[in-house]
Amino acid sequence: MRILLVGAGGVGAAFCSIAVRRDFFDKLVVADYDEGRARAAAEAVGDARFVAAQVDATSAEAVAELVRSHRITHVMNAVDPRFVMPIFEGALAGGADYLDMAMSLSQRHPEQPFALPGVKLGDEQFAAEDSWRDAGRLALVGIGVEPGLSDVFARYAADHLFSEIDELGTRDGSNLTVEGYDFAPSFSIWTTIEECLNPPVIWEADRGWYTTEPFSEPEVFDFPDGIGEVECVNVEHEEVLLMPRWVKCRRATFKYGLGEEFIGVLKTLNKLGLDRTEKVKVGGVEVSPRDVVAACLPNPATLGPKMRGKTCAGLWVTGTGKDGNPRSTYLYHVVDNEWSMAQYGHQCVVWQTAINPVVALELLANGTWSGSGVLGPEAFDAVPFLDLLTEYGSPWGQRDDPQ
Amino acid sequence: MRILLVGAGGVGAAFCSIAVRRDFFDKLVVADYDEGRARAAAEAVGDARFVAAQVDATSAEAVAELVRSHRITHVMNAVDPRFVMPIFEGALAGGADYLDMAMSLSQRHPEQPFALPGVKLGDEQFAAEDSWRDAGRLALVGIGVEPGLSDVFARYAADHLFSEIDELGTRDGSNLTVEGYDFAPSFSIWTTIEECLNPPVIWEADRGWYTTEPFSEPEVFDFPDGIGEVECVNVEHEEVLLMPRWVKCRRATFKYGLGEEFIGVLKTLNKLGLDRTEKVKVGGVEVSPRDVVAACLPNPATLGPKMRGKTCAGLWVTGTGKDGNPRSTYLYHVVDNEWSMAQYGHQCVVWQTAINPVVALELLANGTWSGSGVLGPEAFDAVPFLDLLTEYGSPWGQRDDPQ
Repeated sequence: MRILLVGAGGVGAAFCSIAVRRDFFDKLVVADYDEGRARAAAEAVGDARFVAAQVDATSAEAVAELVRSHRITHVMNAVDPRFVMPIFEGALAGGADYLDMAMSLSQRHPEQPFALPGVKLGDEQFAAEDSWRDAGRLALVGIGVEPGLSDVFARYAADHLFSEIDELGTRDGSNLTVEGYDFAPSFSIWTTIEECLNPPVIWEADRGWYTTEPFSEPEVFDFPDGIGEVECVNVEHEEVLLMPRWVKCRRATFKYGLGEEFIGVLKTLNKLGLDRTEKVKVGGVEVSPRDVVAACLPNPATLGPKMRGKTCAGLWVTGTGKDGNPRSTYLYHVVDNEWSMAQYGHQCVVWQTAINPVVALELLANGTWSGSGVLGPEAFDAVPFLDLLTEYGSPWGQRDDPQ
Repeated sequence: MRILLVGAGGVGAAFCSIAVRRDFFDKLVVADYDEGRARAAAEAVGDARFVAAQVDATSAEAVAELVRSHRITHVMNAVDPRFVMPIFEGALAGGADYLDMAMSLSQRHPEQPFALPGVKLGDEQFAAEDSWRDAGRLALVGIGVEPGLSDVFARYAADHLFSEIDELGTRDGSNLTVEGYDFAPSFSIWTTIEECLNPPVIWEADRGWYTTEPFSEPEVFDFPDGIGEVECVNVEHEEVLLMPRWVKCRRATFKYGLGEEFIGVLKTLNKLGLDRTEKVKVGGVEVSPRDVVAACLPNPATLGPKMRGKTCAGLWVTGTGKDGNPRSTYLYHVVDNEWSMAQYGHQCVVWQTAINPVVALELLANGTWSGSGVLGPEAFDAVPFLDLLTEYGSPWGQRDDPQ
C-alpha cells in the first residue's frame, strides 16, 4: 500500500504519528499547500517511508498527478471539507482508492432551509457512485471518529446487540478546557461553524431526511468516564446521511455537546455575518470572514500542551435487544488529552479523529475490508475494526442503561 | 470662511446637508480617500460652494497641501479617530484652524490597564497646545454631539444652573430599531468597539483620571421623550478628559446605553480577538479583524430609511443649585429618526453628530466664539451655541429631577 495523505494540519500530523508505528504500508507521501508544513509532519516521525510534497487541493488534476507520479494506491483526505470534491475526483482520475473524514458539503434548500434539505452532505460523492464501481475503485467516505467510528458502532449495534433499532443517536461531548485562553476551540473553527450553523439534518424512516433550525432539540446527555452531563443540540453531520443507507432504524440524529458559551459565540458570528465564506472587500483586499475568524483564533493543533480533560465520541442506540426486551446502549470511545499528548504528542480531538482512518487502511491493506463504489464505514464488518482499534491501545466502551 | 471637510461618510454627508442651508461660509471642499464618495456628498446638496477632492487622511502633508491650494481657513475632521493626528497636524502646517468630533486615541497602561490610564484620549493633541497658541491658531476638539453638545451643556450648567457640581455624567441612550436586520449598529462599529472595549476612564477631583474594567458600573437611566429606561455602562469617552479641564466638578463620567445584546456582541468580538486592529494573515493577504467586522455589517449611513425611534444625547448634572439647594438636572438633545430623514435625508445618529460642528463653525465665522490653542467646547460661552442650535430647528431640553 502506498498512501497519499493530503493535508498536514492537526489531523494529518496526528495520522502520521499513529501510522508510523504500523507496517501495513510501504510509502506515505504527505502533501500540503504549504510544503514546509508537509515536510515538518513527514520529518517529525523519522521514518524513510514518509516523504513530503506540495499540492494544490483545489485541483483534481494536481492530485491525480501526485497519485500517478508516486504510484499511490490510497488517497487519504485530511483537509477541510471544502476540498473534498477535487481530491475525491483526483484520486479516481489518478487510479487510486480514496478515504475521507468529512463528506462533500451541503447547500441549504433555497425556499425552506429549516424544513427541507437542499443538497445534502455527500450528495455530490454518492452521485459519482457508478464511476467508482465501474472502475472497481473504493471511496470509503466518513472514516474519522465522527463520522467514522460512530458509523462502525451503528453496524456493530445492528449486527450484535439489537433486533430492532429505534434511534441511532450520535452524541459527542467533552470536558476539555484550554489554559490561558478566553476562547480556544479544540477543533477546526471553519468546520465547526459549517457544522453548527447549517440547518441540522434528521432522518426518520417514514419521512426521510428533513432539517430544523440550528441548535434544535437541546438535550442533556450524561457522558461516561467522568465527563458527565453536557448540553447537546442537533447539528448537521454525516452520520445522519450515512447510517440509514446501510443500517435499518427508525430515526438517525447527531447531537453535539457544544455548551452554552460556544453556542453563544456561534450565534453572534452568524448575527454579524462573520460565519460567511463568500469574500468581502476590506480596504484593498478581499477575504472570507470565516477565514478571518479562524486566523484570529489559536491553531487547535498547537493547543495540546495547554488542554486538560477528555473527549468522548459515541453512539446512543435505543430499540429492542436480541433478547426481545427494550434496550438502550451507548457505544463510545474516550481519549484523555494527557494520554494522547504523552503517547503521541497530539491533542486528543485531532488524535481521536486520525486513528480511525489508520485502522481502516490497515484493514484494507490486509484484505479484511474490501469493496468498490462509494461506501460508508457501516458497509463493512464492525468487529475487526473494533478489535484492531483496541489492539492499537485505544479501546472502546459500552454502557447499557437500566430498563 | 473656507472649509475643508475631511471625510464624506455618514457624518460628513449629513454635515453637508445641514451646512448648505447656512450662508456663513464661501467654500466647502469635501475630501475623501474615495473621491467618488466625496463627489456624491458635494453634488447631493446642489450648491456651487461645495466642491470635491481626493485626500489621503493618513498624510499630514496631503492635508496641508489641500489647505494651501484651496486657501482653507477651517479644517473639519469627519473621519474615524485613527486619522486625527495627521489631519490635526496638516491643518496647522497648512495654516488653518481645526475642528474634530473625536480626539486622538488612547493607549492602555502597559501594566495596570484597568486601574490606571496610559496615553489618554486627546493627550497627543494637548501636547501640541503651545504650537497652536504660538501660531494663533485654534483647534476646537470634540465638537460633535458627544463629545460636543454634552460639553456645551457642562459649561451651561456651571455658568447658569449650579453653584457646585458633584458629577458631570454624560448619558447616551436610544430606542432605535432597524427593520430587517438581526444586528445593525446605527454608528460606526469601528469607533464603537474602540470606545466600548477600551478601559473606561473616570475623573475624580481627589484622584484624577483612572480606569476600570469595560462595561463597569451598570446603571438604568430614564431617557426623556418616550425613550424610557436603558441600561448604561461606563465607556471611554472624550467628555471625561475635556470637562474637568474647564469646568469645576467632583466627578466626570460617561455612560452609554448599549443594552444587553450589544454588550454581548462586543464581549464575543473581544473574546475571539476580532476587535483587534493589528493586521492578521489570512491566506495570501493581511487584514485588520476589526475592519472585517465593519465590512460585514451594513453601512450605518444607509440604514436611515429602515430605522425607527429616537436617539438622546445629554448630560446629567448633580450638585448644589444657584439657590443653595441640592439639584439634579438632565440637559439633553433628542432627535427622532423620522424627523431627520424627512427634513435632511440623514439618519438621526449621524445627523445629531453633524449639526454641532456646523453651529460651532457659524459662531467662529461671525466672531461670537474665538480663541487659540487646543480648546474643548466647554472653553466657550454655551448660550449662543444653544440658541443657534434652537434657531437651526433642533431645540434642546432640560429635565429637573424632584429633590
